[in-house]
Amino acid sequence: MIEAAKIWLDVQSIRARAPLVHNITNYVVMNTTANALLCIGASPVMAHAGEEVEEMIGLTRSVGGALVINIGTLSQKWIASMSAAMRAAKTLNVPIVFDPVGAGATTLRTNTCHKLLGDVSPTIIRGNASEIMALLDSHIQTKGVDSSEGAPLALDSAKALAARYHCVVCVSGEVDIITNGSDHVTIRNGHAMMARVTGLGCTATALIAAFAAVNPNPLDAAAHGMAVMGIAGEMAAEKAVGPGTLQLHFYDALYNLSREEIVKRLK
Amino acid sequence: MIEAAKIWLDVQSIRARAPLVHNITNYVVMNTTANALLCIGASPVMAHAGEEVEEMIGLTRSVGGALVINIGTLSQKWIASMSAAMRAAKTLNVPIVFDPVGAGATTLRTNTCHKLLGDVSPTIIRGNASEIMALLDSHIQTKGVDSSEGAPLALDSAKALAARYHCVVCVSGEVDIITNGSDHVTIRNGHAMMARVTGLGCTATALIAAFAAVNPNPLDAAAHGMAVMGIAGEMAAEKAVGPGTLQLHFYDALYNLSREEIVKRLK
Amino acid sequence: MIEAAKIWLDVQSIRARAPLVHNITNYVVMNTTANALLCIGASPVMAHAGEEVEEMIGLTRSVGGALVINIGTLSQKWIASMSAAMRAAKTLNVPIVFDPVGAGATTLRTNTCHKLLGDVSPTIIRGNASEIMALLDSHIQTKGVDSSEGAPLALDSAKALAARYHCVVCVSGEVDIITNGSDHVTIRNGHAMMARVTGLGCTATALIAAFAAVNPNPLDAAAHGMAVMGIAGEMAAEKAVGPGTLQLHFYDALYNLSREEIVKRLK
Repeated sequence: MIEAAKIWLDVQSIRARAPLVHNITNYVVMNTTANALLCIGASPVMAHAGEEVEEMIGLTRSVGGALVINIGTLSQKWIASMSAAMRAAKTLNVPIVFDPVGAGATTLRTNTCHKLLGDVSPTIIRGNASEIMALLDSHIQTKGVDSSEGAPLALDSAKALAARYHCVVCVSGEVDIITNGSDHVTIRNGHAMMARVTGLGCTATALIAAFAAVNPNPLDAAAHGMAVMGIAGEMAAEKAVGPGTLQLHFYDALYNLSREEIVKRLK
Repeated sequence: MIEAAKIWLDVQSIRARAPLVHNITNYVVMNTTANALLCIGASPVMAHAGEEVEEMIGLTRSVGGALVINIGTLSQKWIASMSAAMRAAKTLNVPIVFDPVGAGATTLRTNTCHKLLGDVSPTIIRGNASEIMALLDSHIQTKGVDSSEGAPLALDSAKALAARYHCVVCVSGEVDIITNGSDHVTIRNGHAMMARVTGLGCTATALIAAFAAVNPNPLDAAAHGMAVMGIAGEMAAEKAVGPGTLQLHFYDALYNLSREEIVKRLK
Repeated sequence: MIEAAKIWLDVQSIRARAPLVHNITNYVVMNTTANALLCIGASPVMAHAGEEVEEMIGLTRSVGGALVINIGTLSQKWIASMSAAMRAAKTLNVPIVFDPVGAGATTLRTNTCHKLLGDVSPTIIRGNASEIMALLDSHIQTKGVDSSEGAPLALDSAKALAARYHCVVCVSGEVDIITNGSDHVTIRNGHAMMARVTGLGCTATALIAAFAAVNPNPLDAAAHGMAVMGIAGEMAAEKAVGPGTLQLHFYDALYNLSREEIVKRLK
């Protein structure tokens, strides 16, 4: 059961502690996810060189933070750095949030996910229904990076994936499903136009990492992150004329997010 | 002869079919071109790894789509992936739209264009006058990625380049020229302030790819893409205070583009 | 002593001459710094391939311009290209503006700065207080890419660093300090919300490069760039609801910057 008061507590913690969120992410969203993290009150850093990712994880550990691994624009060197960063984060108990962008679209993406997740179990996996199902069953092919599956099968897939990797799985969609394999919660916030802004799924992953940095319960952290994502999206949609203005007001909504808005809007 | 009704038909097709546009493009514009594609109704994907580009082209073929090759921030591995993607696209009849960003500025860029275009003839090449002329004659040096040549010589160069590669060539500028080597059309839409937003040329290329995915006539596809580009730019400029707000409203204009706006504004 | 009339003279020069600013910079800010350069009137180009950076410096020299080196998302090949570009720029007297993003956060970043700066002394170094102090003393560890040090020690560190590399050092913060090792000036423009937009420090570096391309006095160029940065930030903050709208209006403010605004706001 998600409570507005607990979401607000996490938002206040993020603003007070400015957790360091280390992102190894795709080129498309580096700027937009960094901005979303700054707007919610976190401190983003992007670092992908093999020579520095472990040291950056050490720094993340010492000041408090989390790691984002996002496979949106893969290549071999980046995969090696993702692997090294995940191992270091696991050793140092830094929360890991994993985004399997486009899993199911190509063998490279699906196999890379299986390898990385097989080596190091993350704290939270967030994807759309197609991606989550492709992680579970390699025979499903998705259409690029947008979701091609509805929610019906999503809960079962999410639970099975959570059980396999002993982690929390978040399936984002019209209704967001978050499960640890046994319990699950749903979030019904958000707006349809958000699908027309590139990388808002990746932004959700980054925000979840900020919440995971301040909240030791990964089910709550993922749910709180998705709720804030959806609420800020609704606030932005009310002022938006199209996806351009939606993105813009989304940042401002994160920055100005108040207890009242969360209480009023949480579904 | 470009007709508003036919442009509108293509826009409706893109919105209905959401063609997959596979981009191997430069770091500067990955986010902005993905957003423009989403706003017009297409489904963008960015993938550059040698291990996945051919499979992504296969997916693009199976769901309907097009390939964008944009050389704006080159390096050797990316060139190899561009080459592999273009060959796969040619084999599978996936339309290829090529953007020779900064051709003429450095030997690497000019030679890379000659090599890629010599191996696989694209469906459409779009560049500014300097770039198109540099592709035709290697002795011309351009000033970085902005155009340093006016339109007078552009038509002759475009026709010669189209004849050389048996493709459609689009020269964007104050007046856009689109030719298949024999016929040509011109588009007079757009706004001067668009030159002060980075990557709107690359955005034109990406939009043309969305049109090429739904319209089998490349001359029409390129002309329709440029017309929509210019019309959305005019709509945005009417609300803009500067290049920041221009970019923002440009996205919204693509998203809200109506038959009426096209009919009213097409020049 | 910074004078509004001299800042305005530089702005007019940039608008009239559109200097080419060659950026080897990080993935996060490529789009935003290109847009800021276009808005102030410069002509940005991004090129990082080892095969083309020297030729691009030659072009930059021939049309008038400057080089930006920004280490925000490092990897070995990029470091090699940065080194080659800096050597070529030094040989051809192209101004070099260096941004040590995250120096002090990892050994790779700190050592890369020491190596690059030890090989080729830049014209101007711009960083926050943490970064500047980390360049001076390798034992300081900074928290990611945001500043963790205040201004008190900043002036001494800046002067010492300027003396070591015979260059101008700019420490940005609530009060910006610019020194050539003996003289120094301060700029008190800007707005606190600017710290919540990613890459505005990198944008300051890019703008300084545009000023360095038209003003042969590096102390003045850096100070004028920082003043314009702060003034445009103040103009944007007056219209902004949050960091999203701040970024947007910042671009428009650069584009619309007038002599009157500079005179009225310069502190």
